[in-house]
Amino acid sequence: MNERLESFSSWLQDREIDAAFISSPDNVFYFTKFRCEPHERLLGLVVFQEADPLLICPEMEKDDAQKVGWMYEILGYRDTDDPWDLTEKKIKSRISQIQTWAVEKDHLNIARFEELTTRFPQTSFIRADEKLNELRLIKDPHEIQLIKRACELVDFAVEVGVHELAEGKTELDIIAAIDYEIKKKGAGMSFDPLVLTGPNAASPHGVPGMTQIEQGHFVLMDLGVVYEGYCSDITRTVAFGEISDEQRRMYEIVLEAEQRAVSMIKPGIRARDLDEAARKVITEAGFGDFFTHRLGHGLGISVHEYPSITGTNELTLEPGMIFTVEPGIYVPNTAGIRIEDDVLVTTENVEILTTYPKTLQMIG
Amino acid sequence: MNERLESFSSWLQDREIDAAFISSPDNVFYFTKFRCEPHERLLGLVVFQEADPLLICPEMEKDDAQKVGWMYEILGYRDTDDPWDLTEKKIKSRISQIQTWAVEKDHLNIARFEELTTRFPQTSFIRADEKLNELRLIKDPHEIQLIKRACELVDFAVEVGVHELAEGKTELDIIAAIDYEIKKKGAGMSFDPLVLTGPNAASPHGVPGMTQIEQGHFVLMDLGVVYEGYCSDITRTVAFGEISDEQRRMYEIVLEAEQRAVSMIKPGIRARDLDEAARKVITEAGFGDFFTHRLGHGLGISVHEYPSITGTNELTLEPGMIFTVEPGIYVPNTAGIRIEDDVLVTTENVEILTTYPKTLQMIG
Repeated sequence: MNERLESFSSWLQDREIDAAFISSPDNVFYFTKFRCEPHERLLGLVVFQEADPLLICPEMEKDDAQKVGWMYEILGYRDTDDPWDLTEKKIKSRISQIQTWAVEKDHLNIARFEELTTRFPQTSFIRADEKLNELRLIKDPHEIQLIKRACELVDFAVEVGVHELAEGKTELDIIAAIDYEIKKKGAGMSFDPLVLTGPNAASPHGVPGMTQIEQGHFVLMDLGVVYEGYCSDITRTVAFGEISDEQRRMYEIVLEAEQRAVSMIKPGIRARDLDEAARKVITEAGFGDFFTHRLGHGLGISVHEYPSITGTNELTLEPGMIFTVEPGIYVPNTAGIRIEDDVLVTTENVEILTTYPKTLQMIG
Repeated sequence: MNERLESFSSWLQDREIDAAFISSPDNVFYFTKFRCEPHERLLGLVVFQEADPLLICPEMEKDDAQKVGWMYEILGYRDTDDPWDLTEKKIKSRISQIQTWAVEKDHLNIARFEELTTRFPQTSFIRADEKLNELRLIKDPHEIQLIKRACELVDFAVEVGVHELAEGKTELDIIAAIDYEIKKKGAGMSFDPLVLTGPNAASPHGVPGMTQIEQGHFVLMDLGVVYEGYCSDITRTVAFGEISDEQRRMYEIVLEAEQRAVSMIKPGIRARDLDEAARKVITEAGFGDFFTHRLGHGLGISVHEYPSITGTNELTLEPGMIFTVEPGIYVPNTAGIRIEDDVLVTTENVEILTTYPKTLQMIG
């Protein structure tokens, strides 16, 4: 078994859990390198204490799993099969009794949970979520390399976007250009790109549309790239044409908040310290009510993953963690500004993986 | 309340269910017109038998929900709040006791299910999934109009892709061009576009990459557009340069299978009849083992939704249903061919919504 599976199996042994049923595509990818988006179809990885793991996927995906190097058994099923009948039979042929299952309670749906409880009665169910988060929390050198490449590509994506800005172009025009250039590089976007201008940016998750770039507005770009299964996530906000002193002041507050948090990062600091530090800057400047979200989130195979960088998270930073730092100010009907970097905790302090300039850029 | 909510509420009344907790973004959109991708955050729509519905979403999304016209109460929460505490309190202030909840068992995860069971003990849980599927199954005239527009756009997407084909261009080059043109039209792709050439297309869900378009290969394009929240989904397979007689024969078999199934569509026919008819054509031609998936799937707010067009689905077709018909042949390491249309069941028979030509196209 690979190192990841071994480490997870020994957790099963320590906790006396007979087997784990892993169902989220990201965790299946973490263990198998097999990227599958099964939609409503069943995808599962059964990990046992000692026996070889078992992958369950649609028959038509089997080849792909083998191609990426999965060497253990694959249970393929057709659309006319009941995949649960096959799964139950196969597992029972492998192991006489299951008394404890570990499952991803944050992912597995009730219908599938009921399949497991019906087919393996008198079984107790343990959360695997925290253990899986913990395994994925510290990135190994290869993962760091892939995320760094995703960050280089997302720096380039911002460059493309900024270069594309022009009066009369729409938010979607800018996104189309970014998407195009990233695809030409052989990569993809890790989420639907956001390019929001003027008041549209006042919603942190607004939907880009046909609004045209106008003089005197900020343009907010929140972009992510996925490279060989690993994600980056950046936000830059630039000024298009002349902006007011008040807009400039808001920008400087967000920038200061971002830099304050980033400058504190080192092993031993708590996640909450970062959120508090950034929020303090924004609150003291009078915009506390307009910073409506957490400071950041972990980043890796998922574009949002553990840990959440909030004011209540006591987690202590350790080398190898990668997360976003992204304070923002959103004044409804007026403007939105966010600055976001991806950072790697190092043994000393921090490496900022996204490098596109953060000093206020005046375009056009 | 709007008609959809009223219809769902009266189901709750008939079944004596106190309230429903709707958590899937697509079903929340169906009832509210509010499109929210909350990632790991909580999104919920609580529908009561008689009281006004309650929307639960991140504080920062509240404005967006109001902007699209949601007129009922919104419970917004911040990242530092426990949204379940707020939800419990709010619901208990609305209704003295909940004895029965309806939930989406195919969507709600165990952790959230446990929140509900802990906070509303002695409650029983009923599947809402089939009722929601049933509500969404028959498209209303406005929905049909939006899907038709998404289909027009996806026809155009194929046109762009075919126009872009040239020796030496990569699969991703073609996708980049398609994406770009669709974004310029103010729409988006409903899933990651597939452009697969030669043996790459032999996996029905292969991942496009840097493989170059080559003479004598098929190029398979599986594309979807989302327009104002509604999806289309098309596949066309074209020949690049001269292909062999065997390749041509395979194409004609898939085309015949597709046309056979489409020609049978009318109210009263069962879903399984369509799958069987298409499969019979392919099996009799000797390629039965290489048609490894169901014939099609429903289409609407979700790109894959109810009903599944399989050999075991007894569902009887009715006017207003929209689904895909997409037989394929996949010979490992050799080639993949799929032809997919979106169809609307009419009172008479069928309207084919995707109109890009299906006769074998020889490009280059």
